[in-house]
Amino acid sequence: MGLGILADGINEVIATTADPATGVPNAAPMGIIARRGRTMMRLFHGTHTEANIRASGWVVANLTFDPMVYVQSAFADLPGGSFTEISVDGIPMQRLFACEAWEAFTTTIVSDNPETLVVELTPVAAEILGLQPHPPNRAFAGIIEATVHATRYVVTRDPTLWALIEQAGEVVRKCGGEECVAALDLLLKYCQEK
Amino acid sequence: MGLGILADGINEVIATTADPATGVPNAAPMGIIARRGRTMMRLFHGTHTEANIRASGWVVANLTFDPMVYVQSAFADLPGGSFTEISVDGIPMQRLFACEAWEAFTTTIVSDNPETLVVELTPVAAEILGLQPHPPNRAFAGIIEATVHATRYVVTRDPTLWALIEQAGEVVRKCGGEECVAALDLLLKYCQEK
Repeated sequence: MGLGILADGINEVIATTADPATGVPNAAPMGIIARRGRTMMRLFHGTHTEANIRASGWVVANLTFDPMVYVQSAFADLPGGSFTEISVDGIPMQRLFACEAWEAFTTTIVSDNPETLVVELTPVAAEILGLQPHPPNRAFAGIIEATVHATRYVVTRDPTLWALIEQAGEVVRKCGGEECVAALDLLLKYCQEK
Repeated sequence: MGLGILADGINEVIATTADPATGVPNAAPMGIIARRGRTMMRLFHGTHTEANIRASGWVVANLTFDPMVYVQSAFADLPGGSFTEISVDGIPMQRLFACEAWEAFTTTIVSDNPETLVVELTPVAAEILGLQPHPPNRAFAGIIEATVHATRYVVTRDPTLWALIEQAGEVVRKCGGEECVAALDLLLKYCQEK
């Protein structure tokens, strides 16, 4: 990846995109898969991220350790002022305003199945804005786990997923600071509402 | 915490200590609890970390994202050359050579029960050596989870813990790069051997 911010494996970043017709930005937690020198994203149909990438051909991976951003962007819109525009090779793109680093990619459709759209990512720009020390924390990891499962749970209501959310929630309450616990509470609210 | 590297909640760092009589260093994954302005560690009796802290009165928290270091230091000794000496207020301490940041603490015994020794930590020095971007990765988090459970599993052989190790292992294989998968394989080897 050279100057990029991604590591080998699945990078659980906040993906920012925009509707090229309206300029309206969107953020969502997404897994970016980096393996054997290739970088891919698997997108479910019907999401803003999928529609925006299909229409614009770009996505920005944002590095943030704010658990609330993972939960809010998974289930709702981020507050106004969460985004800022960047120009990459003359293309206006959107990144998170409060991220520690970002990497922009152009996208090429690899497969377009009834279930998912798979795109390959080509890095075009990256910037380290200010890395902070983030000691590994089981609670932050638990928020990521709970968010992954909850985005499917609100659609399927699968009790197996609910059990995984509760399991992650226990770890969040045991190991988390106030930020993680507040993010968990919001996540559980979204699980009940939808 | 001011200039420190820890965040609110339980910080899963690599703790380095040394036997003040022999100077022999030790490393082990430890949870450092930062809550309401206090920083604490709960140590099980009979470990090198507990004996060294009791005898020396200091511990260093090391920030690393090398999954192999978590597994190796949990179950065995790190290879030669893994440590480097630092002098803090005239006290020789040991940190990991290959860490991104470290923070040194003096320790005060808060409680000394039959089960655990609890010490309060007072920060005395910290250094950011070079922070790298580490996008959240469920596989790295899975190695931390599996290590936490495995250190107890090798003592108790509790099948509930084994189920949690297997669950974390699945996530590591699904989301991890080669480094995480190699660390998982080593962890499973230690679980079978001991």
